[in-house]
Amino acid sequence: MAVAKELEAVIGRIDERRLWDRHRAIANFGATGRGGVNRQALTPEDIAARKQLLAWAAARGFAASVDAIGNLFIRRPGRDPDAAPIVAGSHLDSQPTGGNFDGVYGVLAAFEVLEAADEAGVATARPIEAVVWTNEEGSRFAPGTMGSAVYAGHLALEATLKIADNRGTTLGDALATTLAGMGVSAHHELRAPIAAYLEAHIEQGPILEAAHRRIGVVTGIQGLKWMRVEITGEEAHAGTTPRTARRDACAAAIAMIAALRDLTRDDADVLRFTVGRFELSPNSPNTVAGHALFTIDLRHPDRELLVTLGSKIESVCREHAGGCAVSVTETLDSAPVRFDPAMVAMVRGAAERQQLASMEIVSGATHDAKFIAELCPTAMIFVPCERGLSHNEAERAAPADLAAGARVLAEVMLTLANRG
Amino acid sequence: MAVAKELEAVIGRIDERRLWDRHRAIANFGATGRGGVNRQALTPEDIAARKQLLAWAAARGFAASVDAIGNLFIRRPGRDPDAAPIVAGSHLDSQPTGGNFDGVYGVLAAFEVLEAADEAGVATARPIEAVVWTNEEGSRFAPGTMGSAVYAGHLALEATLKIADNRGTTLGDALATTLAGMGVSAHHELRAPIAAYLEAHIEQGPILEAAHRRIGVVTGIQGLKWMRVEITGEEAHAGTTPRTARRDACAAAIAMIAALRDLTRDDADVLRFTVGRFELSPNSPNTVAGHALFTIDLRHPDRELLVTLGSKIESVCREHAGGCAVSVTETLDSAPVRFDPAMVAMVRGAAERQQLASMEIVSGATHDAKFIAELCPTAMIFVPCERGLSHNEAERAAPADLAAGARVLAEVMLTLANRG
Repeated sequence: MAVAKELEAVIGRIDERRLWDRHRAIANFGATGRGGVNRQALTPEDIAARKQLLAWAAARGFAASVDAIGNLFIRRPGRDPDAAPIVAGSHLDSQPTGGNFDGVYGVLAAFEVLEAADEAGVATARPIEAVVWTNEEGSRFAPGTMGSAVYAGHLALEATLKIADNRGTTLGDALATTLAGMGVSAHHELRAPIAAYLEAHIEQGPILEAAHRRIGVVTGIQGLKWMRVEITGEEAHAGTTPRTARRDACAAAIAMIAALRDLTRDDADVLRFTVGRFELSPNSPNTVAGHALFTIDLRHPDRELLVTLGSKIESVCREHAGGCAVSVTETLDSAPVRFDPAMVAMVRGAAERQQLASMEIVSGATHDAKFIAELCPTAMIFVPCERGLSHNEAERAAPADLAAGARVLAEVMLTLANRG
Repeated sequence: MAVAKELEAVIGRIDERRLWDRHRAIANFGATGRGGVNRQALTPEDIAARKQLLAWAAARGFAASVDAIGNLFIRRPGRDPDAAPIVAGSHLDSQPTGGNFDGVYGVLAAFEVLEAADEAGVATARPIEAVVWTNEEGSRFAPGTMGSAVYAGHLALEATLKIADNRGTTLGDALATTLAGMGVSAHHELRAPIAAYLEAHIEQGPILEAAHRRIGVVTGIQGLKWMRVEITGEEAHAGTTPRTARRDACAAAIAMIAALRDLTRDDADVLRFTVGRFELSPNSPNTVAGHALFTIDLRHPDRELLVTLGSKIESVCREHAGGCAVSVTETLDSAPVRFDPAMVAMVRGAAERQQLASMEIVSGATHDAKFIAELCPTAMIFVPCERGLSHNEAERAAPADLAAGARVLAEVMLTLANRG
């Protein structure tokens, strides 16, 4: 077959029904009975989901290997056994009240490409692999995107294995149980070369749905800063203390946040500013608050803009402190990621060639692709999810959208797998 | 002696040192070891403080009686045994981390007047009494100002006796223990006539201290409204959800409170507006809040102004709801009290005559005087407390200020006790 014909054959074997049924099958592991899953990393539910994937792989004769942090690789060999593989995947672990698509879709879409290639009888020059990164969610063992961060050398393996969950079980012990349960003997090296990496994912936001686009051509992952603002005023009687005699930590916090909302107002609606945590002490209706705490979650694709804005936050807070003491601490600083332009162009090109309505989009959430992008050319493919809901048992995606994303993934993986 | 001379004799017997020592003695009952007290209503500590007062009364030969809610009356008889008494007092119970002056001062100042009259050998036409109202603080058994409210017929006795503390002990049982411990057999009728009522109290605010005045001529108690505002938006991912697609309960709450602060801005600084409680759900840094709750404590001496402002709050909240649902509930509505102008004039006159720097002041906190004012002409006398701190173990007052307040109290009580 000519390459173009081979590509069409593989795309033609992407099976919407099979892909959907596999989502339903994985959804059984940790099913909550309310439509979602609780399948946190390295739990029996996570192990069961991995074993299901291994069973599907074994049925196709695909080889499996596992690395020191439990990342699981399913390989369809290429003609050149020494060539670095084209890898795609995501994760199977979930939030405690997670949905059926976050992560799972990226793994199953990649596996669908391997199966479609197999069914079409199409050989590739490079191996193609589906990967399951360990503990993307970080809800049982913090931090998240752990498997990809260890793989890329961002987290040290030894220290990571000592991290404990809130019952005192270490990651090392949970991982040993997981590895024993999976029964995969082949060892995969950390940082083993990857020729290119792709990750398909539900958007987890409302943009594609609102714009009626089936494919999000993800150009990167926005940068993120977390700040923690603590305000110390003085507790006082709400009835007896005049306004001018108060050092009201709540009033100061309100003034600060109102000013920060003005500072971060972005009519293009690209900048994300969120105060998600806000606490007062003593938190009593008739006592002027002596202490307030709030968090800032600030995100934007442009590093410089984030740094500039971030540097203004403390002075805005001080300006509105109203006599209170204020401390501003940066608790997280994650630089934006720009995916390889050639990879992004391939995703865009595949969507266009397949006549799927697409648009460029920046990922608002972090994904394993963030760390793997440091190792090799990387891109992501988004598909819509209902009302943007994610990290939620009500997470929904349409079978046709999932299949469309898998077809774009197939085109890019196959094209890359046949390049030198 | 002529009346004026008698008055001077009584005032001259007000003993700063004795009054101070008695505060120190009462401070032993429930002393926390950190300078404050935990002497909640009808506890062994409260009983012990009452017994100390009874011991001092017995040493003077003053009669004691107790009513059905445990209010304790110490009487120095007048020439006319059938005349309604002039009563002064306050409470001996405290907050869990209370100070040594809140309430105690009003009781001891009244008792000091009885003693001073006795020492001066001055007879009055009417009896003069010191009263200890039961459970003013309401921290063990809610609500507070319970003894005066039952006395004035605002709370039904039977229902009140069934109120339980958080260990399940009913007020009725705690009261029986208290009455047995006190051993006072004489019964005092609820709503028994009172000719006039006075209450001396620390200000519990910073106004007198800042103005360098020793006596606060209390013209009334400000009115109070409590509101509870609940906002329901939608939880969303902080990274993936554009601002325009959010229904952010925190952002709505911030906008509401900022607008309410503008609405309630009072350059005269008489109006009190406090948001003391603020809670978000799920209260997570990277999740747009789906739910917010905050309370409003609004106080002003003018009833009409309070009603007008209160009626605007809901519409201001709705205006800034940003797509969220909002419910505003009034949880408390306490009308302002205006003390009897003739009584207030007597307090002012006594302070002026005694050449004590004074000023008119509206009580920011509620006191037992609020309910007794419905039964008889009533006024209050404030003295400064350090930095306005109260409901706090660090509560402080100066011995000279306490004595000054007691001298004003003596003048007004004696003058009233000799009127027809």
